Amino acid sequence: MQLHQSTWAEVEAYLEGSKGIVVPIGSTEQHGPNGLLGTDAICPEVIAKHAGDESGILVGPTFNVGIAQHHMGFKGTLTLRPSTMIAAMYDWVASLRRHGFESIYWLNGHGGNIATINAAFAEIYSDGSLELDGSNAVPLKLKLMNWWELPGIMKLCEKMYPKGHGSHATPSEVSVTYYAYPDAVKDVEMSPKIAPVGPIRDAADYRRRFPDGRIGSDPSQANIEDGEKLVKAAAKALAQDFGKFCAREG
Amino acid sequence: MQLHQSTWAEVEAYLEGSKGIVVPIGSTEQHGPNGLLGTDAICPEVIAKHAGDESGILVGPTFNVGIAQHHMGFKGTLTLRPSTMIAAMYDWVASLRRHGFESIYWLNGHGGNIATINAAFAEIYSDGSLELDGSNAVPLKLKLMNWWELPGIMKLCEKMYPKGHGSHATPSEVSVTYYAYPDAVKDVEMSPKIAPVGPIRDAADYRRRFPDGRIGSDPSQANIEDGEKLVKAAAKALAQDFGKFCAREG
Amino acid sequence: MQLHQSTWAEVEAYLEGSKGIVVPIGSTEQHGPNGLLGTDAICPEVIAKHAGDESGILVGPTFNVGIAQHHMGFKGTLTLRPSTMIAAMYDWVASLRRHGFESIYWLNGHGGNIATINAAFAEIYSDGSLELDGSNAVPLKLKLMNWWELPGIMKLCEKMYPKGHGSHATPSEVSVTYYAYPDAVKDVEMSPKIAPVGPIRDAADYRRRFPDGRIGSDPSQANIEDGEKLVKAAAKALAQDFGKFCAREG
Amino acid sequence: MQLHQSTWAEVEAYLEGSKGIVVPIGSTEQHGPNGLLGTDAICPEVIAKHAGDESGILVGPTFNVGIAQHHMGFKGTLTLRPSTMIAAMYDWVASLRRHGFESIYWLNGHGGNIATINAAFAEIYSDGSLELDGSNAVPLKLKLMNWWELPGIMKLCEKMYPKGHGSHATPSEVSVTYYAYPDAVKDVEMSPKIAPVGPIRDAADYRRRFPDGRIGSDPSQANIEDGEKLVKAAAKALAQDFGKFCAREG
Amino acid sequence: MQLHQSTWAEVEAYLEGSKGIVVPIGSTEQHGPNGLLGTDAICPEVIAKHAGDESGILVGPTFNVGIAQHHMGFKGTLTLRPSTMIAAMYDWVASLRRHGFESIYWLNGHGGNIATINAAFAEIYSDGSLELDGSNAVPLKLKLMNWWELPGIMKLCEKMYPKGHGSHATPSEVSVTYYAYPDAVKDVEMSPKIAPVGPIRDAADYRRRFPDGRIGSDPSQANIEDGEKLVKAAAKALAQDFGKFCAREG
Amino acid sequence: MQLHQSTWAEVEAYLEGSKGIVVPIGSTEQHGPNGLLGTDAICPEVIAKHAGDESGILVGPTFNVGIAQHHMGFKGTLTLRPSTMIAAMYDWVASLRRHGFESIYWLNGHGGNIATINAAFAEIYSDGSLELDGSNAVPLKLKLMNWWELPGIMKLCEKMYPKGHGSHATPSEVSVTYYAYPDAVKDVEMSPKIAPVGPIRDAADYRRRFPDGRIGSDPSQANIEDGEKLVKAAAKALAQDFGKFCAREG
Repeated sequence: MQLHQSTWAEVEAYLEGSKGIVVPIGSTEQHGPNGLLGTDAICPEVIAKHAGDESGILVGPTFNVGIAQHHMGFKGTLTLRPSTMIAAMYDWVASLRRHGFESIYWLNGHGGNIATINAAFAEIYSDGSLELDGSNAVPLKLKLMNWWELPGIMKLCEKMYPKGHGSHATPSEVSVTYYAYPDAVKDVEMSPKIAPVGPIRDAADYRRRFPDGRIGSDPSQANIEDGEKLVKAAAKALAQDFGKFCAREG
Repeated sequence: MQLHQSTWAEVEAYLEGSKGIVVPIGSTEQHGPNGLLGTDAICPEVIAKHAGDESGILVGPTFNVGIAQHHMGFKGTLTLRPSTMIAAMYDWVASLRRHGFESIYWLNGHGGNIATINAAFAEIYSDGSLELDGSNAVPLKLKLMNWWELPGIMKLCEKMYPKGHGSHATPSEVSVTYYAYPDAVKDVEMSPKIAPVGPIRDAADYRRRFPDGRIGSDPSQANIEDGEKLVKAAAKALAQDFGKFCAREG
Repeated sequence: MQLHQSTWAEVEAYLEGSKGIVVPIGSTEQHGPNGLLGTDAICPEVIAKHAGDESGILVGPTFNVGIAQHHMGFKGTLTLRPSTMIAAMYDWVASLRRHGFESIYWLNGHGGNIATINAAFAEIYSDGSLELDGSNAVPLKLKLMNWWELPGIMKLCEKMYPKGHGSHATPSEVSVTYYAYPDAVKDVEMSPKIAPVGPIRDAADYRRRFPDGRIGSDPSQANIEDGEKLVKAAAKALAQDFGKFCAREG
Repeated sequence: MQLHQSTWAEVEAYLEGSKGIVVPIGSTEQHGPNGLLGTDAICPEVIAKHAGDESGILVGPTFNVGIAQHHMGFKGTLTLRPSTMIAAMYDWVASLRRHGFESIYWLNGHGGNIATINAAFAEIYSDGSLELDGSNAVPLKLKLMNWWELPGIMKLCEKMYPKGHGSHATPSEVSVTYYAYPDAVKDVEMSPKIAPVGPIRDAADYRRRFPDGRIGSDPSQANIEDGEKLVKAAAKALAQDFGKFCAREG
Repeated sequence: MQLHQSTWAEVEAYLEGSKGIVVPIGSTEQHGPNGLLGTDAICPEVIAKHAGDESGILVGPTFNVGIAQHHMGFKGTLTLRPSTMIAAMYDWVASLRRHGFESIYWLNGHGGNIATINAAFAEIYSDGSLELDGSNAVPLKLKLMNWWELPGIMKLCEKMYPKGHGSHATPSEVSVTYYAYPDAVKDVEMSPKIAPVGPIRDAADYRRRFPDGRIGSDPSQANIEDGEKLVKAAAKALAQDFGKFCAREG
Repeated sequence: MQLHQSTWAEVEAYLEGSKGIVVPIGSTEQHGPNGLLGTDAICPEVIAKHAGDESGILVGPTFNVGIAQHHMGFKGTLTLRPSTMIAAMYDWVASLRRHGFESIYWLNGHGGNIATINAAFAEIYSDGSLELDGSNAVPLKLKLMNWWELPGIMKLCEKMYPKGHGSHATPSEVSVTYYAYPDAVKDVEMSPKIAPVGPIRDAADYRRRFPDGRIGSDPSQANIEDGEKLVKAAAKALAQDFGKFCAREG
């Protein structure tokens, strides 16, 4: 069930049976020579959509621009400042709580978002935690899950790409986007075959270290078939993990 | 050309020929008994996508949650506070300027966004306008266009729906979303046939005035065929208007 | 009744009979060769004062600096950033609500303020609209009225100045200020007689397009007598419109 | 010379001879049984206006709502939060610097503003002080002067009102406003004759300690004649002090 | 009793007997040729610690970086912007209120903090003062005390240093730090013996006026013995003043 | 070398040889039945101090209140909101950069700070990354190191406490504080011997899951001797790691 394709009455009906929602969250940033700028938003979006279609999970709109200051040396990248992203996530959660959602599961597609998402959670929880009586009348559960950390997925990635999986512009994420947008498959040679690794700082430093944008990966291995397998496996794992999260502790 | 389906190198190449980009901007909010929560984001997104595919215009990611505080009485609506939206738009524009974009055209799908988008423009322009030397080295042009105000579109809407077009949850916007997502077509009776009209204030007031969410409209007239006509006409008008905007004054 | 010339006990007494207040809001910005920098604040202030004296309406202090980033190329202009103006209007309204005011009518003198005033309204309404129970215990009505859009006024302006009324530094607003401050009447030749028109962006762009600050106007037509007529007509229309707004829907 | 009654060309001409400006800053807050809500804005405004008319000093618009949270227990009071006031003063100064003003003299009418004005100064200076090269290309001088601390004024107040001058709703400030607005003179008995004194905290605490709003004063001594003497003496002292401030160190 | 050396259970027990706490607040900024960068934080910290050890007063952690933009021309200085400091103090007080503290006594070591501390108090009080019912269920008392203004201390300083006490990098504050950190005593000649005086603006202006950082002082008079006397006298005065503040009005 | 015990001239001399600084950062929050509220600030402070004394590393003041909203159910805990902490860290770094520091090494004592520290890094880097030319004239390196993750330390902890090390209120951190403050050693029975584990959300949820504040630990094993060993080992590891960080890539 996709929130943006539902009416308000359908969401009202859904809320009678569940207080949980999955929100895909990603980034719009360079993904190397053959990766799409939308990769990190597309991956959680397509996985969540698949899970929503299969299992009836409610999937919210995609939070599609995140923390990508380090990629600003590559054209097309968009970034929020962390303080802006915290404010925006705060408003999204305030809106969802207003409707009675209690279990909000953020399916993330971008490693660079992790810190700010967790900071946003602390910002949101602070309101209740600083209330004078401390009673927290409305319980709220927030969870961050990176799609590649869903049960079984990283193992599948490593099996698919024993060499050159890397950590940015990975063949697995590129495969997922190729499955989502077959018309957008790019055929680009990688040079060097496997990209270098190193720490992440600001945009100028990043560009110097990683001239074509990749970190440690060889995404020329990406293909539609792998993407399909990854989406199906991840969607299944998501439905299960989300179910546990909503039902009790997760 | 869709930014999120392009690589950074493709955007770099695009920038050699054009400094302009279209950014769809909408809202996630109730759209009455048969309208989708994503309506206001879907409309500019699908129109811009169509224009981008046809004419080579670069289309950025969709800014999909906007100012919808007045719809919070209906489940599924999400809103930003205006101050948050200004901060987010500020960061999007700062990112685009960093890459050399000079003409940023926001194709809007939500009347409730208009004030805040214009306020964001003034916030962004203020940096240059308050600079000591006032020279504004990098010229920046920001434009807001509501898709229904593209040349010829409102006339088309009025011709299609001489009665009950209204101003929220209109048959025209619902048609566009049905064309975009044929599986999401809803069949709902409207009662009353045409919704009431009135001023917009906060969520409680809105719910009292407009019990099923519509304002002045009868969206049961919506259908896929009309949606297709609207998308094609709007995409064509967009490509032309955007061309003028980039070339000189618009 | 002018709030700043009243005691707190007098306002307390007023509140027993009415929960409404008029707040003049304007800008301090260039108004062409013969217009005063305070024009946009003076116009709503003097009209509201006149209405307050005649009809007993309570008139608050004037919010006298607004959104004028585009005029920063002309000496003496002051501007707020929209985010600052939203914060300030938020505090003004929070103060008024604290005292029991429910109907706050902003009489505006500056087109450039319209977007940010409406954004501020959405920011203020958001608090109630995002409340968990959504009950909105204290109803709040906010209204923006540009003085030149008060019933009958634009028609009067067009009759007075069939040519060269324009949209910035208009003869009508200059006339109002001359009536308010007869000692400040300026005698300046206009060249060209009628100023050019065009879009509004940042300060440098504005100065290039509109070298002496006017847009489309010939304010050399301004005079004290017209100002008096305009103030009297606008004050009368304001008292009526404000009465309707407070009494029920407006 | 009043900025709001001048054209931009007149301010441009003024700037050729002086980089200094006086900005009246006050508050809109209860001033006891016979004092006007606008007292703290009116006093610096009328004194600065008088000085501007006599000596050619440029006087900016009045910053008319300040820090008055402690007076919120009395109807009609408006307050900004300090963070809002800092943001607004920041924008005013940024605007003035853009035009070349270097010496900005804030003539203050409200003791409760002092801390926040000084905090705003530190906020404004921080930009230059944190610049990497520390060169501070454009020197900026900000000065706060409370009108009652202008040379000779407090002595005059004490001579006029040897008993019951107090510290809030004083007979001197009420006299100044009566001189400014003779029609607004109020005739109210004070009970007790002289109001109590004590510390200032929040609104509820303030109302308990100072039931009619006054602190330590007997403003029934106020009269138009005293107001006139105060305004003339203060305006003269202001012109001298401002001259020193602009010329060199002050 | 030092909060940071106590367990939560010990603080819980303390709160049964007292709702008061002392919070040392200072700055990290240059203190001339022989003064420590931590002087303004060390002084209130050591005085409060002494008082806490002697009298059982609860002493919170030290707020150790304050408003020091004017000292940024000297290496090692750290500063907050006033808006940041207000936000941080707001959160500290919100935390303490959550636990039931009602009387929060800020023992300050830095003149440059005074304005912003008072602005922060107004920011904090504003929440309660703007509440609709104005009832302020939880009374909160905030007090600022500069350690050198504790009863008897300034007199002691003047007696110890009849010449060259000055106002920044004073021999009294340097003595207190030497007592706290005997290993950090510095032996530096002062030239001139007594530093110049003047107004405080931004960092560049400050450095020009006060080349070695001092204002009006000769801190070569500082010594450990004086520091000990000052700490003991100030700690005693603090315990008494804090007792009065908690018990009733202070 | 401790910044707060140094003069500005000493820091100026240090900067001629090194552009690096260690900043201890922690939290003030409950640490179970026998742990000090200051534990997370004390640990990095004492380790950094030891390293600074031994090796000449410059150690800045301690950032002593962090993200502890989840501990607000226990008396004495203080927290910042993440947005406040980002603003404060931003100002600290801006100050250090102004003086020429390029390598800022944050030695952290609190797991709950990790996300927000990394978010603050991204906020700080964003300024340079969004600059139009992207040249980043002044290179800035920011590093976060949790003291327990210094090379060799976690192994040492596990060897010391094979059972009941846990993740909050661990015997290792309590030992470090006992070494730092021998007078503050507490003798408290733990019940149960080893605390439960689980996810961390808001304060009410935390208190329900972890009634005495510990997570997975038995801190009754803490003692001064272990603390001394940990401090010495960590200080040595810190000096080495910091040296690598400053010299080149770290």
